[in-house]
Amino acid sequence: MSTDIEIAREATLKPIVEIASQLSIPETQLEYFGRFKAKLPLSLIDEEKVAASNLILVSAISPTPPGEGKTTMSIGLTQGMNRIGKQTTVVLREPSLGPVFGIKGGATGGGHSQVLPMEDINLHFTGDFAAIEKAHNLLAALIDNNLQDRKRSLNIDGRTVVWKRVFDVNDRALRNVVVGLGGTSGGVPRETGFDITAASEIMAILCLSNDLSDLKQRLGNIFIGMTRDRKPVFARDLKAQGAMAALLKDAIKPNLVQTIEGTPAIIHGGPFANIAQGTNTVIATRMGLSLSDYVVTEAGFGSDLGAEKFCDIKCASSGLAPKLMVMVATIRALKYHGGADLKELTTPDTDALRKGLVNLEKHLENTRLYNLDAVVGINRFTSDSDEELAIVKARCEELGFDAVVANVWGEGGAGAEELAHAVVAKIESTEKTFSPLYDWNQPIEDKIETVCTKVYGAGSVEYTSQAKKDLRKIKKLGFEDFAVCIAKTQKSFSDDPSKLGRPQGFEITVREIEINAGAKFVVPITGEMLRMPGLPSIPSSEHIDISDDGTITGLS
Amino acid sequence: MSTDIEIAREATLKPIVEIASQLSIPETQLEYFGRFKAKLPLSLIDEEKVAASNLILVSAISPTPPGEGKTTMSIGLTQGMNRIGKQTTVVLREPSLGPVFGIKGGATGGGHSQVLPMEDINLHFTGDFAAIEKAHNLLAALIDNNLQDRKRSLNIDGRTVVWKRVFDVNDRALRNVVVGLGGTSGGVPRETGFDITAASEIMAILCLSNDLSDLKQRLGNIFIGMTRDRKPVFARDLKAQGAMAALLKDAIKPNLVQTIEGTPAIIHGGPFANIAQGTNTVIATRMGLSLSDYVVTEAGFGSDLGAEKFCDIKCASSGLAPKLMVMVATIRALKYHGGADLKELTTPDTDALRKGLVNLEKHLENTRLYNLDAVVGINRFTSDSDEELAIVKARCEELGFDAVVANVWGEGGAGAEELAHAVVAKIESTEKTFSPLYDWNQPIEDKIETVCTKVYGAGSVEYTSQAKKDLRKIKKLGFEDFAVCIAKTQKSFSDDPSKLGRPQGFEITVREIEINAGAKFVVPITGEMLRMPGLPSIPSSEHIDISDDGTITGLS
Repeated sequence: MSTDIEIAREATLKPIVEIASQLSIPETQLEYFGRFKAKLPLSLIDEEKVAASNLILVSAISPTPPGEGKTTMSIGLTQGMNRIGKQTTVVLREPSLGPVFGIKGGATGGGHSQVLPMEDINLHFTGDFAAIEKAHNLLAALIDNNLQDRKRSLNIDGRTVVWKRVFDVNDRALRNVVVGLGGTSGGVPRETGFDITAASEIMAILCLSNDLSDLKQRLGNIFIGMTRDRKPVFARDLKAQGAMAALLKDAIKPNLVQTIEGTPAIIHGGPFANIAQGTNTVIATRMGLSLSDYVVTEAGFGSDLGAEKFCDIKCASSGLAPKLMVMVATIRALKYHGGADLKELTTPDTDALRKGLVNLEKHLENTRLYNLDAVVGINRFTSDSDEELAIVKARCEELGFDAVVANVWGEGGAGAEELAHAVVAKIESTEKTFSPLYDWNQPIEDKIETVCTKVYGAGSVEYTSQAKKDLRKIKKLGFEDFAVCIAKTQKSFSDDPSKLGRPQGFEITVREIEINAGAKFVVPITGEMLRMPGLPSIPSSEHIDISDDGTITGLS
Repeated sequence: MSTDIEIAREATLKPIVEIASQLSIPETQLEYFGRFKAKLPLSLIDEEKVAASNLILVSAISPTPPGEGKTTMSIGLTQGMNRIGKQTTVVLREPSLGPVFGIKGGATGGGHSQVLPMEDINLHFTGDFAAIEKAHNLLAALIDNNLQDRKRSLNIDGRTVVWKRVFDVNDRALRNVVVGLGGTSGGVPRETGFDITAASEIMAILCLSNDLSDLKQRLGNIFIGMTRDRKPVFARDLKAQGAMAALLKDAIKPNLVQTIEGTPAIIHGGPFANIAQGTNTVIATRMGLSLSDYVVTEAGFGSDLGAEKFCDIKCASSGLAPKLMVMVATIRALKYHGGADLKELTTPDTDALRKGLVNLEKHLENTRLYNLDAVVGINRFTSDSDEELAIVKARCEELGFDAVVANVWGEGGAGAEELAHAVVAKIESTEKTFSPLYDWNQPIEDKIETVCTKVYGAGSVEYTSQAKKDLRKIKKLGFEDFAVCIAKTQKSFSDDPSKLGRPQGFEITVREIEINAGAKFVVPITGEMLRMPGLPSIPSSEHIDISDDGTITGLS
């Protein structure tokens, strides 16, 4: 069987100008990055068209080791929609480079449902992440420079500085560091750390900003730490926002590429809805809606992470509203949730499947928290038995949801036509109107509790003493009306990755709460979540190579 | 008077495809980055043309606070050459982002001798530096990951690891850090640090590689540190070179832009000839020579730094050979070398000028160490008096060198036509043939002494006990036949920045010697040189801004 990169390489890509012309974008509006990528100017956004178009949000059951194929399904569905005559653009998040060399591989779909050029998208793409790093770490350097400076000191207490540095490499040794060593010329010694770039507040700000002006204002609002006399310090106090915004002048523009079937794809903004906001940019979603009749967008992991943040942070702050959700599930993953062994997932096992279905049920129930209809997309694998597929479909119907099997990896858009028809029919017939789950004006603790109990199914929320301290600080600083962007494992509805299926009545522990004042949310960190991953014992970098003629192998 | 960025913004840029057509590059060979930048494939290199073309190396007197305008002169001369009918491409180094937000500003020339688009070139450009950072820091993460790993340990002694991390921000607090804190899951605690990206060995490797295959081999040869049983460890032991080369697949391709007069400019590879190799890439120089009859290239700072490294490292390893040097001087800077006060440099002062001329004399003498002819280019300022200009010209003639006044900032190429004629005439009449100063097969200490005494004018070289230890290690590891890439202040021929003019008989102190086995040189670090700069009390980031329509101000 061909690998994803082999299938990708066999595809004949259309020049990006042809993709743009499908969206009626004139060539003069394109900023080329090579022959197959281009940035789009914000002037193409058309608010009237945004309101008239249809936003489809793809989510999934709780992730398992074999993978569910959310991105693959989103791309395949888009290809299928175009095949049945519905002008559709897929709007995705950009992959993070760090995990490409770790364990995860790329994030550009698979098989005959991919976005291309996959090597470029998985590596540096158009430099957006690098620009975010530069802006983020410039602010860090300005903070340490001010700590060093006697003449123009802001009197910052180095021990209170919460602004870390970021880098898009899985590098656990950078999680906790001491900087400023080496004597008086080397800065002021203090403890700090590095997060992965996707977890940068600047990534969230880029994702939530409406335009350059909004971006700059949010950058100035970044909370850095406290002065020695306990006053808050912001990025604007260091006059940093202008230079930071200048560094992001191109990163703010969405990137146009294509699917393997030559339909348009827009890829822009941040992954990692477990440790970060993790949905693509408001600008990219608006761009997609401006340029086509339907937008398929994916918010990573399950309904508890990506979709929750998409609805309660991104939509609530921007006014965007999905018309429908598509919930991706696989027979293999449902069996894993039902207790089947990882090595036995290709063996038919209706018992495990029935047990595991509770995970899908909870994710489907969650769509109703947002007053949304949903269609289940079963991502078909060759090992799935007809009996297993029938069980899932029957259970979904009992719950009031259509479930459609799609073979997007093997057949591309052709394998998703039935799903596409079901999606269009549901959008045309639904009487529901999206509404977010909570009101930002509630107290922070109420918002955390709402998400934990209603979306996760928790029984209670526990706060460590550090988290309680953080809550008091948030209140004192006047940030009570921020959204909550909870960092939680993607593997379980709970904060314990080993609790598969549908755990209930569990306790969620909030370990600490970070403030992202520019993004206008706080980040309650639950369980053992870390915002800088590590590399595995055998990093995938060992298998990646490039030949003398520039052909890359080992990316997946 | 208009600022550089204002002059730049008033210029009408030609689409990059028109610039490419001046060089007979077909459009299908261009990899666009926006409308005004493109990457060039290595297949355009034509060795026969390289040998037949003419390479002009621009150097300068020792830098002073008012600046000498080497880049401006290189661009102006190129524009002048094209005006007198000589097909000429300027081949420059890429600016480093760090200093843009510190004290230095950009590095794209000035006035009517600039390369454009200046904002893009000074900020992220085409992402080459970001790619170098990623490749560099991936290796660092793989090292710390191996230190952490019990199953597949290479038995590396963490205390011997010399591979630091890099980032392109002036951030003194990162010079000396402790990583790996936070308990068993956070890596192994150890001392390390960050250099600025331009000082990365990967930058040097990119600059010195002939092609992708050479690049990958050099990446594998990077020396990392020692095992606990005292065996050397290389990047190839971590199987890192394939992934690192994949990250550099686009960075290896030179970037085509244009001068403000619409002539071709190629910009590629690393700055900072004080702390690094600091000359542009061998590939870019070859590309320029393949595509035009003359190439004007600049090697930063004085003949003691950029030009020395250009000749003894870059040319010696690649076989490239300059035909002529152009030595840039200004009346203001010569007066500063002669003891004039920084505030009085615009006042005519023939005494200070005569005293300061010794600096220019030594730089001119140095061209003969490489058996090269040179023409002096006096970069004219409005404050220069005719008497002062006459003194410099007369002294140069006494020494056997033509000196020509050029007004490149104010007049662009038109102000450099006389210089262009002098340069062409000298190339056509010279009987000299370039040869490097030293033989790589000499012992390391002999090579260091040769550069210090002959090029710098030192009386002796002193080694600290650390440097002596490093010398023994280099010998033991079999790296004696590497070139020497000395890190030294640019402000003086000596290692003491306060010794202006032409110090003689001084002692150079080598503090430590780094090994860059992939680049095939060692880096003796002299005096107080640091490979990660800091920010000043008032960073220029405070003055940089971007308007709602995307117009950047405050870059210079």
